[in-house]
Amino acid sequence: MENLLKNLKDTKVINNDPLAKRIAITAISPEKELAVIIMEKLTFDDENVDAQLQQTSTSHKLIQQNDIYHVLLSDSHRRNDKLDNQKVTIIYPATQKHVDKYSKANISLFRETPQKYNDIVKPYIDSLPEKETKWIQALVSGEAENETYYYRGQEFVIAADYKWDKKDFNTLYLQAVVKDMNLKCLRDLRTHHVSLLRSIRREIGNVLKSNWGLNLSQVKLAVHYQPTFYVFHVHVVSVNYSSFPGLNVGQSHLLDDIIEMLSLKSDIFSQMTLTYHLSDLHKLHHLLKPHESDRDLEHGA
Amino acid sequence: MENLLKNLKDTKVINNDPLAKRIAITAISPEKELAVIIMEKLTFDDENVDAQLQQTSTSHKLIQQNDIYHVLLSDSHRRNDKLDNQKVTIIYPATQKHVDKYSKANISLFRETPQKYNDIVKPYIDSLPEKETKWIQALVSGEAENETYYYRGQEFVIAADYKWDKKDFNTLYLQAVVKDMNLKCLRDLRTHHVSLLRSIRREIGNVLKSNWGLNLSQVKLAVHYQPTFYVFHVHVVSVNYSSFPGLNVGQSHLLDDIIEMLSLKSDIFSQMTLTYHLSDLHKLHHLLKPHESDRDLEHGA
Repeated sequence: MENLLKNLKDTKVINNDPLAKRIAITAISPEKELAVIIMEKLTFDDENVDAQLQQTSTSHKLIQQNDIYHVLLSDSHRRNDKLDNQKVTIIYPATQKHVDKYSKANISLFRETPQKYNDIVKPYIDSLPEKETKWIQALVSGEAENETYYYRGQEFVIAADYKWDKKDFNTLYLQAVVKDMNLKCLRDLRTHHVSLLRSIRREIGNVLKSNWGLNLSQVKLAVHYQPTFYVFHVHVVSVNYSSFPGLNVGQSHLLDDIIEMLSLKSDIFSQMTLTYHLSDLHKLHHLLKPHESDRDLEHGA
Repeated sequence: MENLLKNLKDTKVINNDPLAKRIAITAISPEKELAVIIMEKLTFDDENVDAQLQQTSTSHKLIQQNDIYHVLLSDSHRRNDKLDNQKVTIIYPATQKHVDKYSKANISLFRETPQKYNDIVKPYIDSLPEKETKWIQALVSGEAENETYYYRGQEFVIAADYKWDKKDFNTLYLQAVVKDMNLKCLRDLRTHHVSLLRSIRREIGNVLKSNWGLNLSQVKLAVHYQPTFYVFHVHVVSVNYSSFPGLNVGQSHLLDDIIEMLSLKSDIFSQMTLTYHLSDLHKLHHLLKPHESDRDLEHGA
């Protein structure tokens, strides 16, 4: 095997998954046979974290520091010995908020009937302080600094999401945000919104085409429920962004499906029980939890 | 920073993501301050694969071999020097099938109108050779060897998916498969199927409760469209299985949503345009692609 590896020719990367830290390569042996090689970083071991920290202290160098954030890189990386290397981020001194942010969340599925929406979720949305949407008002006004706008219209704007580097199309991420602050979420949609939703879809298509020569079959248009903020908006994510964490069923709905459902039944989103998952760090988790019952086992009972 | 790392106490793992190869730890400094430490393996570098293969040849040992499959582990791992290590799988001699399997797929989004379903997709489904569903017939008969059944009823069975190790509930994965071979996929569902779907949901709830004390808020029940095989089935996946690749919008639908939609509009799945992504390794990709047009930009036009 050692000899085989040393004498491989015509190496070609056929896949490189940055989330999974895995790369797949093809190569040809001296006997002209094909080889597929998959290299993958191993998972961390829960058991020996103390020993690992000790090792980090001697084998890693500080490469970046900003206030409480310290970033270390393994020494092997600096030696251009790129096989085994890792990044260590230390937040020190940290607060409980940092601990929560990096802790494994406890997730549950909730079934929000129209009644639960009216009794619990809508009052929660209405109670959110207005200042939380101040940045959205600046965004939809079309004049926010530091924003990259691709479309500014009467009814909505299309801007780059701050998480996108504006270079790698595999991680393309835009947002379309409506200007009507009364249109807050999926629950508010009716048939008369279909023309707005179609024009959002059309303008996203135009933005993709004129800026990067892409078309709508290369992106997913998705709406979150529950969303992070309550002004109706559509996420535009490359279909190749397979490790994107926000496009799971139970948190996301395709704009295409929403348009179809509204076209077939106008009041469907006011009548439907919507099912979604929430982490226990979300306020709604604690508001909804006491109202869950064994009866939920009996769907529609 | 080196001193801080050496003197940390009370280390505690707060998250360990096996897919992302990332671990988060809390610890206390001698000054009794809190620290959050995130260790993450770095991604592979596309550029230097030849150098990496050279390095692999001297720093890795063969730990497993089966026919054409060879598994190597970095030497540091064997020295219990667990910080930096990786697994290398070599398939040699390989065929084009292996190359395809590990290549990055080219994914596109398709909008399947009822007409496209009738003209292209249904004929494709009907043309699939019967032998491909032979294993399903064995499964739903309730007598397949090597299967772990949790429920065997008149209308459907519930079995462990072979991808689940039957130990780790974070990766729990069951399947409910109907016995009626004429009920092939989402498109076939009508209001009169709601009672069947509810009883699948109820029995899954009973299985979770009686076997592991879990309840339905801890799992997602999902239906794929397009599915891998055309006998109607429901996937049961833990909500904590956040890195599960098959639960994205555009490939999966929550059973809860399906029941709601059918309850509100009986023929919705025969009338609705369904949107999904397909890799170009899927036969339907090539059947549908020639029928895509610019008009698809104009939703419903």
